[in-house]
Parts: sequence; structure tokens; C-alpha cells
Amino acid sequence: MSRQVGLYIEDLSEGQSASFTKTVTETDVVLFAGISGDTNPVHVDAEFAKGTIFKERIAHGMLTAGFISTVLGTKMPGPGAIYLSQTLNFKAPVKIGDTVTALCTVATIKVEKRRALIHCQCKVGDTVVVEGEAVIMVPSRKT
Amino acid sequence: MSRQVGLYIEDLSEGQSASFTKTVTETDVVLFAGISGDTNPVHVDAEFAKGTIFKERIAHGMLTAGFISTVLGTKMPGPGAIYLSQTLNFKAPVKIGDTVTALCTVATIKVEKRRALIHCQCKVGDTVVVEGEAVIMVPSRKT
Amino acid sequence: MSRQVGLYIEDLSEGQSASFTKTVTETDVVLFAGISGDTNPVHVDAEFAKGTIFKERIAHGMLTAGFISTVLGTKMPGPGAIYLSQTLNFKAPVKIGDTVTALCTVATIKVEKRRALIHCQCKVGDTVVVEGEAVIMVPSRKT
Amino acid sequence: MSRQVGLYIEDLSEGQSASFTKTVTETDVVLFAGISGDTNPVHVDAEFAKGTIFKERIAHGMLTAGFISTVLGTKMPGPGAIYLSQTLNFKAPVKIGDTVTALCTVATIKVEKRRALIHCQCKVGDTVVVEGEAVIMVPSRKT
Repeated sequence: MSRQVGLYIEDLSEGQSASFTKTVTETDVVLFAGISGDTNPVHVDAEFAKGTIFKERIAHGMLTAGFISTVLGTKMPGPGAIYLSQTLNFKAPVKIGDTVTALCTVATIKVEKRRALIHCQCKVGDTVVVEGEAVIMVPSRKT
Repeated sequence: MSRQVGLYIEDLSEGQSASFTKTVTETDVVLFAGISGDTNPVHVDAEFAKGTIFKERIAHGMLTAGFISTVLGTKMPGPGAIYLSQTLNFKAPVKIGDTVTALCTVATIKVEKRRALIHCQCKVGDTVVVEGEAVIMVPSRKT
Repeated sequence: MSRQVGLYIEDLSEGQSASFTKTVTETDVVLFAGISGDTNPVHVDAEFAKGTIFKERIAHGMLTAGFISTVLGTKMPGPGAIYLSQTLNFKAPVKIGDTVTALCTVATIKVEKRRALIHCQCKVGDTVVVEGEAVIMVPSRKT
Repeated sequence: MSRQVGLYIEDLSEGQSASFTKTVTETDVVLFAGISGDTNPVHVDAEFAKGTIFKERIAHGMLTAGFISTVLGTKMPGPGAIYLSQTLNFKAPVKIGDTVTALCTVATIKVEKRRALIHCQCKVGDTVVVEGEAVIMVPSRKT
């Protein structure tokens, strides 16, 4: 059986990047509310949301943050990497129907410690909606 | 008709806390994979997961982080608050069937800036699985 | 295009019955929590549920009640009928993995008023879990 | 770790109320159809629905009734209470996109029997869509 393996720390270089793009749908918001328990009315109550500064329902921030995890866990570095930490700055709302691109770019690599600092940015069009830094432990070829 | 409103910045005090507890199920992991696109085999491939240090499939870190959002968005401060930032340290894996409690505790309050720094900790039994800090903008009664 | 039509009031007779059977799964409970917002820990927190008289997580009562609606809306009388009222007595818990049969039996018919009183019973094995009465407005052939 | 506990019978008073508001979406109707099996064309067939008195697809009555359960199980009385019975009068349809508020108000309390009769009303704007009475067994502080 072919083993699913991602990149090794030796395969990464500064400035290297990968991305994932997904449209956030009403279904995503309903399902995220169910699995997280987060039924904040700004996500599930259209009347309430109208009265907020967002004017309409917005997606859960952690759903958008999940797209960062998708890049890190499936593309770069991919399977085998271990997620150590993530900072998240929520800069703008994601509305239902928005298409979000999560772009992850390698900032610094510490080969001996097998760690990579990765800059993460989620955008809707030209607007940055979430920004932060991930620290990932990446397997080495010299195990 | 009663409006759903959360706490105001004047209602918060240092040390105040709220929590949410949920068992993480196989369904949650499948649905999170679907809505986020994070199909990392450590979450969806039991054979692959056996060969990792976790020995079995683990839940997405952002799903666990979502429980923090549930506390902040539905309990303390609740509806009306705006999520500005979150740091997340992934300290231990959450396995399918684990019951996670997210506990949020007010650390510092800046009433004039309408901001609260909230310490966030997710535990499975006595093990801390995720830890971090949230910054929340909280509505004031003096609008 | 063939029109989907159910039974007419003239097609019903006292004692006539129909049923629907479904196994209640973990997925059903997670999804019901999401669409209803009902994250009562007895449904989503296995640790909490252990400490209750039920000893384990139970399904939402309205999910079980939904199977009654399935019989009435898809089988007897079926499409075209209008649901006027329902009483529900929750007699025993439905646990995840239980297979529920909803049995609906015509009790009385008022042809001139186009209404049927239907006795409804949901069972898991020999245990009645939900019981009640529905009043349905049923179309007549003499429109 | 803080235990999730609801109100005790001694905490309830006549006239006390709590509510939950949610917009009913297409996703909710699709998922409810899937988990309940209620594929009545008035819910899932837009062409059929056009020919009914409702003129468009409507939500399942038991989905709206589920919002009552959300109030009772998560707000008042909340975790620990046991749902004994519910009556439901379906007074008007809920259409996709409608925002429903379920308002529950304590009608009578029998402390010695640990039971509360709760009046339940679901509204869309000023229109009552579902109305009924719940009987709840509520834990007592004097256990």
C-alpha cells in the first residue's frame, strides 16, 4: 500500500508556499455550528446579524482558520508534520458565499530542531480576513 | 421579543470563567474534514494513523479550538462580542471519543478600549490539549 | 410530470396503520444539534451523560418525534396532508444505535371536516419511547 | 473543572422566560430530511410545493419544535432537566429563510413533584407558527 507522506524538513526552503481555496457555504456554517456547538447568533440568526456591524451572517473564524490547517496538513509540509502552535488575527469577516484562499509561506526553518515557522494568510479577494503564524514540527530524512 | 445579548465589558471581572464540554466523535471529524478540506490522513486514514506517534486517528486541532469559540461566542462574553485574535498551542492530541472541556477565564480587562484578554484552556481529563489567549472586543453599556 | 399525491380522507379507515423504522446514529445526533442549536450535554457530552440516569448520551426527543412526521408526511396520509397538531409523551430514552419504529394508526376520521386523529407510537424493541396523538387535515376527493 | 448544570426547580418562578432564535435555512431542511427520513415533497420538492397552499417549500414542523427543545435543554431549565411531554399546535408555516424565535415561559411550578409546566411559542416576526405546552422534570437542590 502506498504510504501517504508529506515533505521532509530538508525539502522546505524559505519563501516556499502553498494554498487552498474554498467557498464558504451556508452548509459549512450550519455544520460547523453543530460540531463545535457555536450557535452564536451572528452565525445562525439572520435577523440578529442584520443589527451587527457585519450586516449579515458571518462564518465562524475557526472555520476559516481550518483552511490554514488544510494547507499545512495536506500540502506543505503535509502528512507526517505535527502542528505545534498557531496565532490568528481575525482582520475582517467572512460572509456566506465568500471564496477564501489560505496561503502559507515558509518564513524560517530550523533543520536541526525540525521546526518551520510558517506565515499564514487567508484572503477574500484582496482583503486579508485572517493572518497568523504557525510552528510545525516536520519529519527529517535523517531519522 | 427578547433579544439575544451577551455580557457587556462592565459585566466582566478578572478571574470570571465559563466552559463548554463536548465529546469529539467520528462524525465531527468526518464533517470537519468535509467543511475545511483538511483530509490529512492522520484524521481520516486509520491505517496511516496507526503508523504515527498518535497510534490512532486524532481530531483536527481547529475543531478543538472551535470549542473555545463556543464559550466566547455563546457564554462569556457571548453574542455581540467581536473576536480579534487567538493564540493556540497544541499540547496533546484529541482522540475520537475524548470529551473536551474548553475553559475560558478573564485575564485582564481594558474597559476604556472595550477589550478583554481571556485565557483559554482545553482539557481531556487532566491533560491540557490546547492552550492560548484570546483578545475580544466587548460592547459597553456606555454606547 | 407525475404529481406526488398521498391518500385522501376517503381512503382512510379506522385502524389503518403505517410505520417507518430508522436506526439513530451518532451522526444524526451531531447534525440535529447543529440544525436545532440544542447542544444539551446529555446529547453531546459523553462524560456528563454518564452521570445522568441515562448513563450514556441520548438522542434528542424531537429527532424521534421526527419519525412520526415521516410516517404522516410520506406514507399515511402522505403528501398533501397538513399537520395541525401533535402531542408527545417522552416515555423512555433513545440511545445512539437504537433502532426506532414509528407506528401511526388512524383512531378517528371526520370526513366532513377532512380531519383524522392518528395515534402515534415510537418503539425501540418492545419499549415505547414516545407516544402521542396527531391531528391531520387530509385532502378530499370532493374538492 | 466546572460542571455544566442548569437551573434547579427552586430557581424557577412563574413568568420567567428564555428564548432562542435561529434562521431556518435550506441546509437545515435538507439535513432534517436526511436524519428524520421525512422527505415529504412539501419540504424537498420545489415544484410540488408551488402547487400547495404554501406556494413554496416549508420547513419541517419538528425542526421548529426543536428550537423549543433548545431553550428547555440549554437555557431554562437547562442541563439536568428531563423532558416529559410536549404539545404542539402548528399554526402557520415556516419558510426557508424565516428567522424563528422560540420563547418559553414558566406557567406553573410544582416544587414537591419537581415539575414545571412551560408555555412554548415559536414566532416568525409577529406570527405565531408553533404553540404548545411542555412538562419538564427539574432537579431539586434538596436531593
